[in-house]
Amino acid sequence: MNADLQVYNSLTRQKEVFKPLNHPRVGMYVCGPTVYNDVHLGNLRTFTSFDLIYRWLKELGYSVRYVRNITDVGHLENDADEGEDKIGKKARLEQLEPMEIVQRYTNGFHEVMRIFGNFPPSIEPTATGHIVEQIEMVKEIMSKGLAYEANGSVYFDVREFSKTQAYGELSGRQIDELMSGSRDLDGQSEKRDSLDFALWKKASPEHIMRWPSPWGEGFPGWHLECSVMSSKYLGMPFDIHGGGMDLKFPHHECEIAQNVAATGCSRPVQYWMHGNMLTLNGKKMSKSDGNFLLPGDLITGNHPLLSRGYSPQAIRFFFMQAHYGSTLDMSEEALQAAEKGYQRLSQAYTTLKGMPAEGNENPGVEAWAERCQKAMNDDFNSPILVAQLFEAAKWIQSAASGQLKLSPTALQTLKHEFERFFIRVLGLNEQQEGIGANRLEQVMELILEIRREARIKKDWGTSDLIRDRLGKAGIVVNDGKDTSSWQFEL
Amino acid sequence: MNADLQVYNSLTRQKEVFKPLNHPRVGMYVCGPTVYNDVHLGNLRTFTSFDLIYRWLKELGYSVRYVRNITDVGHLENDADEGEDKIGKKARLEQLEPMEIVQRYTNGFHEVMRIFGNFPPSIEPTATGHIVEQIEMVKEIMSKGLAYEANGSVYFDVREFSKTQAYGELSGRQIDELMSGSRDLDGQSEKRDSLDFALWKKASPEHIMRWPSPWGEGFPGWHLECSVMSSKYLGMPFDIHGGGMDLKFPHHECEIAQNVAATGCSRPVQYWMHGNMLTLNGKKMSKSDGNFLLPGDLITGNHPLLSRGYSPQAIRFFFMQAHYGSTLDMSEEALQAAEKGYQRLSQAYTTLKGMPAEGNENPGVEAWAERCQKAMNDDFNSPILVAQLFEAAKWIQSAASGQLKLSPTALQTLKHEFERFFIRVLGLNEQQEGIGANRLEQVMELILEIRREARIKKDWGTSDLIRDRLGKAGIVVNDGKDTSSWQFEL
Repeated sequence: MNADLQVYNSLTRQKEVFKPLNHPRVGMYVCGPTVYNDVHLGNLRTFTSFDLIYRWLKELGYSVRYVRNITDVGHLENDADEGEDKIGKKARLEQLEPMEIVQRYTNGFHEVMRIFGNFPPSIEPTATGHIVEQIEMVKEIMSKGLAYEANGSVYFDVREFSKTQAYGELSGRQIDELMSGSRDLDGQSEKRDSLDFALWKKASPEHIMRWPSPWGEGFPGWHLECSVMSSKYLGMPFDIHGGGMDLKFPHHECEIAQNVAATGCSRPVQYWMHGNMLTLNGKKMSKSDGNFLLPGDLITGNHPLLSRGYSPQAIRFFFMQAHYGSTLDMSEEALQAAEKGYQRLSQAYTTLKGMPAEGNENPGVEAWAERCQKAMNDDFNSPILVAQLFEAAKWIQSAASGQLKLSPTALQTLKHEFERFFIRVLGLNEQQEGIGANRLEQVMELILEIRREARIKKDWGTSDLIRDRLGKAGIVVNDGKDTSSWQFEL
Repeated sequence: MNADLQVYNSLTRQKEVFKPLNHPRVGMYVCGPTVYNDVHLGNLRTFTSFDLIYRWLKELGYSVRYVRNITDVGHLENDADEGEDKIGKKARLEQLEPMEIVQRYTNGFHEVMRIFGNFPPSIEPTATGHIVEQIEMVKEIMSKGLAYEANGSVYFDVREFSKTQAYGELSGRQIDELMSGSRDLDGQSEKRDSLDFALWKKASPEHIMRWPSPWGEGFPGWHLECSVMSSKYLGMPFDIHGGGMDLKFPHHECEIAQNVAATGCSRPVQYWMHGNMLTLNGKKMSKSDGNFLLPGDLITGNHPLLSRGYSPQAIRFFFMQAHYGSTLDMSEEALQAAEKGYQRLSQAYTTLKGMPAEGNENPGVEAWAERCQKAMNDDFNSPILVAQLFEAAKWIQSAASGQLKLSPTALQTLKHEFERFFIRVLGLNEQQEGIGANRLEQVMELILEIRREARIKKDWGTSDLIRDRLGKAGIVVNDGKDTSSWQFEL
């Protein structure tokens, strides 16, 4: 456990020492995807950021309950409680049952998470799986006089709420400004104020996803599910709430209002954390402009914006080279640079694993490990950690070439800490999946043996053939003094 | 579409021509796992059987909506509505939130399904995700006078139901015998009759999983979820309901009663299909007797009952060698025989893919393809299909050795149909996952090239070294006239 962990809290707009409410347990809720299409690259970045955070919290010894939801109902096309349900619309367009849409894209989402090395959360609750609890929370908020029914829908009364509680604190909005800026209702709206938001929406006759409620058949408002599922599984208050920057307003603001209204707890979440945006070639990603990539496109390279594919590890490394709270621009140049960087560290890691201790030098391995730790404790600063790993890679290179003769202790610490930070914390697992990878290792051993034999016999033809053909297969051979090793080129 | 498909209907105890209610759409519901521990090998067999059925229905051109549920609440330790909730108990023992248990074992279940080549279902609904709908069905059944409340629980009134409807038809039980055989209630039971079963159970104070209902806080009875989720997603009546043989009574019998009671539809399911048992070394699998294996044990071989591991493909092939409706005994001998059989067919498939047409013979490929089709149309008779594939493997062997000179048409049909039945229908996808497998193919090409060179130069040392070492890596080299091919030994 480390009391030195500092977390940037979006709510207070400052870095704070992290103190969990129920040490050594940590509760973390992250807003998950709305499963009506393939997971967006920006969302992948956000989820990967929180995977890093999850990994580091566990590394510090916390027992983390990590809840990331699946939104499978209630997310309408716009934030003003209007438009079609995103999943319902897709179901209508594809002539499928909405839950078929949900299943397909949930499967796809899990596949992408797995490929990019993200751990599954401890609990992955769904909005449709918590209708009862959502209805209960609506009733609770109504009982406090902070929500009202109108034509079978129920709305949160922001004006009433803001009389006694802060609204807008997280997103830095002033309630007065919000109210003066709120558009005039045309008299046809059911809402008393355009700032009000739906807790429960009446289902129109053609709406497929619908449940009985005290207010007639309908479905929950989008913001409600997160308030319900976070408090159900993490209690109230809880430690960390995360999500993409774009969710701060109105989604997270509404979540806070709901939880405060329902429970009276004035600060439902101790630390709000937000992942920042991913842009593409300097611009916001946009499907209509063609400036848009899916995670799968990046791997296959099969897209007009790409000249080739990149490995999930290289892409993950690219994410890790930026702080989760900074915007990050993706371009082929940047990806290729990340790929090279990942390759260097991966090479260093392979070299390190087989390295014998040959001397008694220590370039300062313990202090280096502390710098790695400090980087992560400084609001999960992965780019600084990456820079530290590059420092270590230099030592590894020197040691491999015989210039640096590491002592057994220095070597052991280096091995242990490099693996810890590179593999476990950054999540850059080099391990290949499936039956093929295991066999590949054995076959490669054989090939390198044949090549060694060939070189001893000065059969340069065979030796070069092997190197060239492996190169074409994306495998790089590294020749050492007496031995050779190999790795994926990436 | 094929009108010739015959399905053994557990309800009528005979094979019947399959006629879907809404041709060309087919609705199929299969009882999924209770996610409180690792998926049982017997369940894996059942789910793999229904995967075969799903694949063949799709192959026939049906548009199948395949629903397989996840039981995450309500499954008590015994069938008499007593004992602890299985998931709740596990959660208590491991000091976790029940949904953490659910998440862990759902993830594990999905992993096993994926490894063994089972397609995900179209919809995978959860019991906790349908509490509202379950409460609605309880209310519906009560309104028909076929259920009663007692101390906050609601029970289905089997005696009352059986006055007007059949109960016990699926499992071949006579209601009179069931009633005379039913144990006397000790007066302390809430049930009017021991045959009655819970639709809704009152939650005791220590019960974690609980929801508000018109009868107080509680949770749904196990049988209810399947009635609710099948009718919600497939309508009432629907085509196929599957599950393990052990679910016939009481689970499926209760499901029928609930659906009949709630909807008045006298035959909720057209075709009931049941997968049969898997025994191990001639005996029922039993954890307490040590006669028990998990799917993962079979792959790693790391278990006292196993001398080594088997590939998921070989295990799947083992399942396919028996009809889904027959009991199947697993033993190492049987697994090794299956492995050899799979290897033979897999070799044949590899050989076939690269085979050129060299003559104008046709040993009867079209008639053979029809026999394959007929086997599957005869209640999904996979062992007959496997026997047919062995027949084809003989032709392939003859053709490879030059004894049979296949015409271009015969070869094309053979390639097309062999792939269809071996890969797509039986689901024995040889494709290796991940980045490693792809590379392995390229590296193996290089190795075989080096070996060819060595043999031309009569460098038997290198040639043998390669063969031996590949053998150790589990890779078999097949030398043809001018070329060599390779495959996993399995």
